[in-house]
Amino acid sequence: MGDGEERRPMRVYGDRASGNCMKVAFTAVHLGLSYEWVDVDIMAGGSRTKRFLALNPAGQLPCVELPDGRTLSQSNAIILYLAEGSALLPDEPFARAQVDELLFYEQYSHEPNIAVCRFQKRYLGKRDDELDPARVEKGYQALAYMERRLAGRRYFVGEGLSVADIALVAYTRLAPEGGFDLGAYESVRRWIGVVEEDLGPA
Amino acid sequence: MGDGEERRPMRVYGDRASGNCMKVAFTAVHLGLSYEWVDVDIMAGGSRTKRFLALNPAGQLPCVELPDGRTLSQSNAIILYLAEGSALLPDEPFARAQVDELLFYEQYSHEPNIAVCRFQKRYLGKRDDELDPARVEKGYQALAYMERRLAGRRYFVGEGLSVADIALVAYTRLAPEGGFDLGAYESVRRWIGVVEEDLGPA
Repeated sequence: MGDGEERRPMRVYGDRASGNCMKVAFTAVHLGLSYEWVDVDIMAGGSRTKRFLALNPAGQLPCVELPDGRTLSQSNAIILYLAEGSALLPDEPFARAQVDELLFYEQYSHEPNIAVCRFQKRYLGKRDDELDPARVEKGYQALAYMERRLAGRRYFVGEGLSVADIALVAYTRLAPEGGFDLGAYESVRRWIGVVEEDLGPA
Repeated sequence: MGDGEERRPMRVYGDRASGNCMKVAFTAVHLGLSYEWVDVDIMAGGSRTKRFLALNPAGQLPCVELPDGRTLSQSNAIILYLAEGSALLPDEPFARAQVDELLFYEQYSHEPNIAVCRFQKRYLGKRDDELDPARVEKGYQALAYMERRLAGRRYFVGEGLSVADIALVAYTRLAPEGGFDLGAYESVRRWIGVVEEDLGPA
């Protein structure tokens, strides 16, 4: 950098109503990273503008732009990158593999069901009886999977908060907005409370 | 272990017709890891038996069982774990983040479209005109995304083969079985040839 140029912080392009975007905010705040939040309104087409597609040709939020201009997308890839070397990402290879396992589970089996039902109800105004029953069923399967893994545990992996908790809490805490009743998932409800308290507001 | 006990190799539970399972085979063979392949026939309900659900309560293939009995699922988490410390996984943090970005892209935007169309045609006998047009369109969007990222490159990340190539080639090479025409995707076709030659048979 030349004299007098300020090194600008990382920019996070996101929509605060999106759980995927909030994963990045929660992680950055928890780690005390400085960043600039750039609001992109998904419903107003903000992730489809020419300017945004130049940052992320996949047209998906969130996307981060590092101080040197390099960009990275995919919420779970971003939080892994930010957490590298911190307590949010275990060093031990198998524990790290369990974090990865949960992150891929979240994107494949949880988000496409729970987050999509929430989107359809909250943003498209669908009623419960207009949701795809197969999607609702798969959402409950994801909650049951989490309940089994959380039984007797405070966090998903090891003894401390990790990015696996952050990734999974992002939409699980919003699941009731998608019509999901968490009543039968006692370990999940307790865990949401623990993680929300650890994270505080973002 | 007691005297006379043989340490058994890692077991890979998989179906060789599944691209997700073949990612693990390709990675293990390329790294020269010894493993025992346990065939699980998805179409015959093999991933829904009591015995398999005890290994992976999510009922998804592939799943590996380590010599000490610990299990790990999610194809991309497994190949990251196997590749740790090898040339298939870059050390440099941003390069590793790009690998993660592509692995999450694969599971969220590629596999649910390209692999699912292939499954419906090959295993459920659907005709092209019976596929969900939105799914086909999203599959082509994934191919276009890959084409853009591969332009002028031999591999997705850095100068060598990585698990990002293995994860993405698994179903891209089989995309024609899902009715996808790769004709317009020159960089993708060239890259499939490069990766297949690097990997050889698995």
